[in-house]
Amino acid sequence: MATIREVADKAGVSVATVSRAINDSGYVGKEAKRKIMKAVKELNYKPNEVARSLYQKSSKMIGLLLPDIANPFFPLIAKGVEDVAQEKGYMVLLGNVEGDSHREQKYIDFFSQYNVSGVLSASSEAQTFGKGIPIVFLDRVKDRKNFFVTVDHFKGGQLAAQTILKSKPRKVVIMVGPRHVDVAVDRLQGAESILNESQIDYELFETRTYQAEDAEKTAEELLNNFENIDSIIANNDIFALAIIKEALKRGLRVPEDIQIIGYDNTPFSNFMNPQLTTVAQPGYEIGYEAAQILFKIIDKETVHKSVSLEPYVIERESLRKVGEQKNG
Amino acid sequence: MATIREVADKAGVSVATVSRAINDSGYVGKEAKRKIMKAVKELNYKPNEVARSLYQKSSKMIGLLLPDIANPFFPLIAKGVEDVAQEKGYMVLLGNVEGDSHREQKYIDFFSQYNVSGVLSASSEAQTFGKGIPIVFLDRVKDRKNFFVTVDHFKGGQLAAQTILKSKPRKVVIMVGPRHVDVAVDRLQGAESILNESQIDYELFETRTYQAEDAEKTAEELLNNFENIDSIIANNDIFALAIIKEALKRGLRVPEDIQIIGYDNTPFSNFMNPQLTTVAQPGYEIGYEAAQILFKIIDKETVHKSVSLEPYVIERESLRKVGEQKNG
Repeated sequence: MATIREVADKAGVSVATVSRAINDSGYVGKEAKRKIMKAVKELNYKPNEVARSLYQKSSKMIGLLLPDIANPFFPLIAKGVEDVAQEKGYMVLLGNVEGDSHREQKYIDFFSQYNVSGVLSASSEAQTFGKGIPIVFLDRVKDRKNFFVTVDHFKGGQLAAQTILKSKPRKVVIMVGPRHVDVAVDRLQGAESILNESQIDYELFETRTYQAEDAEKTAEELLNNFENIDSIIANNDIFALAIIKEALKRGLRVPEDIQIIGYDNTPFSNFMNPQLTTVAQPGYEIGYEAAQILFKIIDKETVHKSVSLEPYVIERESLRKVGEQKNG
Repeated sequence: MATIREVADKAGVSVATVSRAINDSGYVGKEAKRKIMKAVKELNYKPNEVARSLYQKSSKMIGLLLPDIANPFFPLIAKGVEDVAQEKGYMVLLGNVEGDSHREQKYIDFFSQYNVSGVLSASSEAQTFGKGIPIVFLDRVKDRKNFFVTVDHFKGGQLAAQTILKSKPRKVVIMVGPRHVDVAVDRLQGAESILNESQIDYELFETRTYQAEDAEKTAEELLNNFENIDSIIANNDIFALAIIKEALKRGLRVPEDIQIIGYDNTPFSNFMNPQLTTVAQPGYEIGYEAAQILFKIIDKETVHKSVSLEPYVIERESLRKVGEQKNG
């Protein structure tokens, strides 16, 4: 691979001039620039990004913290982020936090040691990164002083409750995510704001995590704990799908005996039988929008502080149709 | 954040000595080392990894190329890789190739510009990376001269065919992945080696990609093209699930009218109704084993050139039970 010295020799200029031209960091004459670019092309010179990032105090990398890569909702976010990063010529450093704050801290240290240009975090633990590294939060937001892209989860909770009310529930269980995750509280308050105005009886079932690996155990617990229910507002699609599976295993019919609404519109939730009715969050768009904001901050452009995307309901088959009767 | 100069001052040694101690790259006296480590701890000094990697010509990063992060099989691999990287104190640079060789090349350039310590590639296009960067291939392997972790896909194809034969197929379609992907050819040859010895009629259906986003279109095409079939050997679970969905939509019963076996044991393939019978590949283990091999190469330990993991069949509900009759 060609060195910066070879480029300078070929272009007939100094190494410092080549460096200025490549890093766009000082005056370089038009003719010199033309010669340098020609030499760069002919020699197929690729600047060493490590040296460049040491010089510039930031690298062409951004960090991405995800809570659970095994939940197919988050790869969608990653895809949105990566598509923008690719366009901008940046790499994505991936951190899969799995609800482990120790692990998250290690990633954050890493990000700052590698001079990342910015961080996108869909993890709710750390809310500051110090050292002036720009950060945009995705989906899970605690502190509204930060930049963030999220979904209006209060409205998401309302939508879930309104949708299930149309399907004549007798007794509802609202699944609640871990209370330290803000979106869990927002959704619960949204759902309760609707159910409290109805005459429908409901109970809460708090889950320790949102992790996909806990789905089947959680489904068993829920169906063991609540025998006299016919309607469930699930806190994500993976848990909803596990509950459908467990219900069918116990000989219950879905939606006739147990109806359920999910949250996320995870890929493949439409491949189930019955297909899952769910409150959709646009995962790809969340990642894409957040990365757009981050690069605007990096490029020192003006940006809106926050973007709130609208959740919406996708009606499929896991709720009873209006007017249908529960038989049996 | 503390600088190396402050650490040197506090420990009463030179910056060069601190650098040698931290990079473990030359003699440092026992007492000096003790003082340095104490100063590092007290000042909460974190070496700048960019500077360190420039010095060492490699960084504490590894690159990971995945063909399609939207297919939930690949996040499993990523999780296995990341768990090992975390243990070793390395970060993972993620590249989502999406079958785009131009995009792949950009990632490869990036990896070498960032002095990654090694690359794990589950993408089949590029098979060399130059510059002596260690590379381990996962799952998709073209050139057996490289280090690789894969599954015995010939055997996987055989297992799929043997399993479907037990369910008395009348006419089989074998879905074949893109021919330039070696594993596609291996699986086909495995399946054909079994079906050719039976009296069962079969046809091939070649798909342009394995991409999740093509699943629904592919399912429609397949069911339009082959009307007189009752059995399908799918080339991955996502395509299999899309076919089940499309078949149910057309009023066909699964497995009574159309039976199907998948490939991968993708998470949530057991949440479907009917649950998918499939040839399982251990995704997490593939990622975990490959990362183990890569770090052994990086640490200059002796390693086995390759690891071939065994596929196995998970029988669920999408094939007819032996002895059952097709009704209607």
